[in-house]
Amino acid sequence: MATMNRQITLAARPVGEPKESDFKLVESPMPVPGADEFIVRVIYLSVDPYMRGRMNDRPSYAPPVQIGEVMGGSGVGRIIKSNSRRFRVGEIVTGYFGWEEYAVSNGSGVQKINPEIAPLSTWLGVLGMPGMTAYFGLLEICHPRAGETVVVSSSGGAVGAIVGQIAKIEGCRVIGIAGSDEKIDWLTGELGFDAAINYKTCPDLAAKLAELCPRGIDVYFDNVGGVTTDAVLPLINRKARISLCGQISQYNVTETEMGPRLLGLLIEKQARMEGFLVFQFAQKMKSAQNRMALWLKGGQLKYRETVVKGIENAPKAFIGLLRGENIGKQLVQLADENPDSAHHDARDGTAPA
Amino acid sequence: MATMNRQITLAARPVGEPKESDFKLVESPMPVPGADEFIVRVIYLSVDPYMRGRMNDRPSYAPPVQIGEVMGGSGVGRIIKSNSRRFRVGEIVTGYFGWEEYAVSNGSGVQKINPEIAPLSTWLGVLGMPGMTAYFGLLEICHPRAGETVVVSSSGGAVGAIVGQIAKIEGCRVIGIAGSDEKIDWLTGELGFDAAINYKTCPDLAAKLAELCPRGIDVYFDNVGGVTTDAVLPLINRKARISLCGQISQYNVTETEMGPRLLGLLIEKQARMEGFLVFQFAQKMKSAQNRMALWLKGGQLKYRETVVKGIENAPKAFIGLLRGENIGKQLVQLADENPDSAHHDARDGTAPA
Repeated sequence: MATMNRQITLAARPVGEPKESDFKLVESPMPVPGADEFIVRVIYLSVDPYMRGRMNDRPSYAPPVQIGEVMGGSGVGRIIKSNSRRFRVGEIVTGYFGWEEYAVSNGSGVQKINPEIAPLSTWLGVLGMPGMTAYFGLLEICHPRAGETVVVSSSGGAVGAIVGQIAKIEGCRVIGIAGSDEKIDWLTGELGFDAAINYKTCPDLAAKLAELCPRGIDVYFDNVGGVTTDAVLPLINRKARISLCGQISQYNVTETEMGPRLLGLLIEKQARMEGFLVFQFAQKMKSAQNRMALWLKGGQLKYRETVVKGIENAPKAFIGLLRGENIGKQLVQLADENPDSAHHDARDGTAPA
Repeated sequence: MATMNRQITLAARPVGEPKESDFKLVESPMPVPGADEFIVRVIYLSVDPYMRGRMNDRPSYAPPVQIGEVMGGSGVGRIIKSNSRRFRVGEIVTGYFGWEEYAVSNGSGVQKINPEIAPLSTWLGVLGMPGMTAYFGLLEICHPRAGETVVVSSSGGAVGAIVGQIAKIEGCRVIGIAGSDEKIDWLTGELGFDAAINYKTCPDLAAKLAELCPRGIDVYFDNVGGVTTDAVLPLINRKARISLCGQISQYNVTETEMGPRLLGLLIEKQARMEGFLVFQFAQKMKSAQNRMALWLKGGQLKYRETVVKGIENAPKAFIGLLRGENIGKQLVQLADENPDSAHHDARDGTAPA
């Protein structure tokens, strides 16, 4: 076992698109658990678009990461030391452990995981924050009904791909928007989307959407904003519901982008647009996870992961995520899943793929 | 009694701000009621911002007015001839009679009025479409709670002035935005608004709003859109509710105006923005009117009207409305309220003020 902890800290506040030099890999002494605390060996670290917002020095729903501070983020890991009576060595847990190999925790916000229910990594994806975001953002904000047309932006990502599949389970017609032909093939070929548009090669997104949504758009689950939303809004139906989950097209802008004023369309169509954060549904999370796990087992819900290895590659994975280079959930694997090979951690390059 | 009917038709589709030459005053023979039809002598004609949209050749929630067609609009009037068993001569009615002195109707969409409940003109204002718009748009879309801060744009108009007063009845702190010092004085001096801003003379609307809303904005009732909304959105609180009623700042634009992309704020604040049309609440209209009539009687609800006389002045009144020249409800009076002086109609200039 390593004697040092490796962490990624924020080295500089990014201007526009983050660069690798905005992050710093640091070595620090292995953390020591205090009273009621425990140490988690992080196996998978999640990188997510929302993290871009935390890198700015601007108040938001969560405080910004400070320069020199370890980047925040969710992970799944195994408890390797414990002074806690509630959390024991060997247990698998998920929590907001940060971008580091070993995390100290007092159990706050930490959930124990039963590894028999689903693969460990899914607790950062389909059964974790992105899956819950998809579930609640679609079902609780948009209330899709069978036969309705649902459009999902960034549908090749961890959230969008799940949104589309849940909408299919609900009996909707589902149109995805994504940024590569490989994603499009996956969405329509494997996940059952009715159609998907590669916005990077489509010469006229608005026209293509109009063609693929002949009965208009009832539900729009938006991860992207910007010109994608501009193309969707003129096609919404009366009483359309728009779930604002993310605005990834705007995360790297250095000054507020200008776009057409389209709010009048919401009046004309008596439509609703609602921003949400997954935390607001915390009370219902458990039952949603159970339902999603059943769908997973039943094969109605599929997922895909893009996994890079080693904490040193987390910044690269995150930058690629913002560029849409991942398919499905972007993960960073920091250690082997198998406890018996815990000393073969990912940085050794000996962990099985 | 006149032997001819005078009407205002759409002469040309306006480009930008409507001009008087976009309208035409025509004389036509007095309409003759068919089977089950009746003739209404229109006493008050309502001019409203939504009419600007009907003048464009663009599909919306209602079909556009055609060139040469009589402009549509609500009125209050007295039945002077009738072949209907339901509607009798002498009864006062309100309905979508159009910009004309005498209207033929089969009773569709026509409501009988009890003149004892409230002044006739209020059925086009506080008890009519603008009042219902204020009532439902505030109470059913925004659900204001006592102690919350409510901001109302175009608060010197027929809808906004009512919105603010209902919000005060609900126990809210109410800040109005309007376009003249006379309106500001009326809102704060007579209607009980906590504060009001003259956006035409205020050098920094965002800063002024921040000063007047030290605890942020919980509810925004928007009649205006554009730069007003740009100033409001950064101040919204968590779980804010935004009722999109109108976007009058955009009605005369010849191409879609550009503005800052601010939808990310809705995510950060888990806020909801909803467009509505008053018709969607038709089932609840009667009870709302009763409630509003009680508030009127009790003096909790006050109103003001800007009245011009004569159908020939309707275009000017409408153009002035779009410029914000009216205070409260803009009306055009076409005839005397008193049935005994029905022959002294407004065009004679002999009707009492």
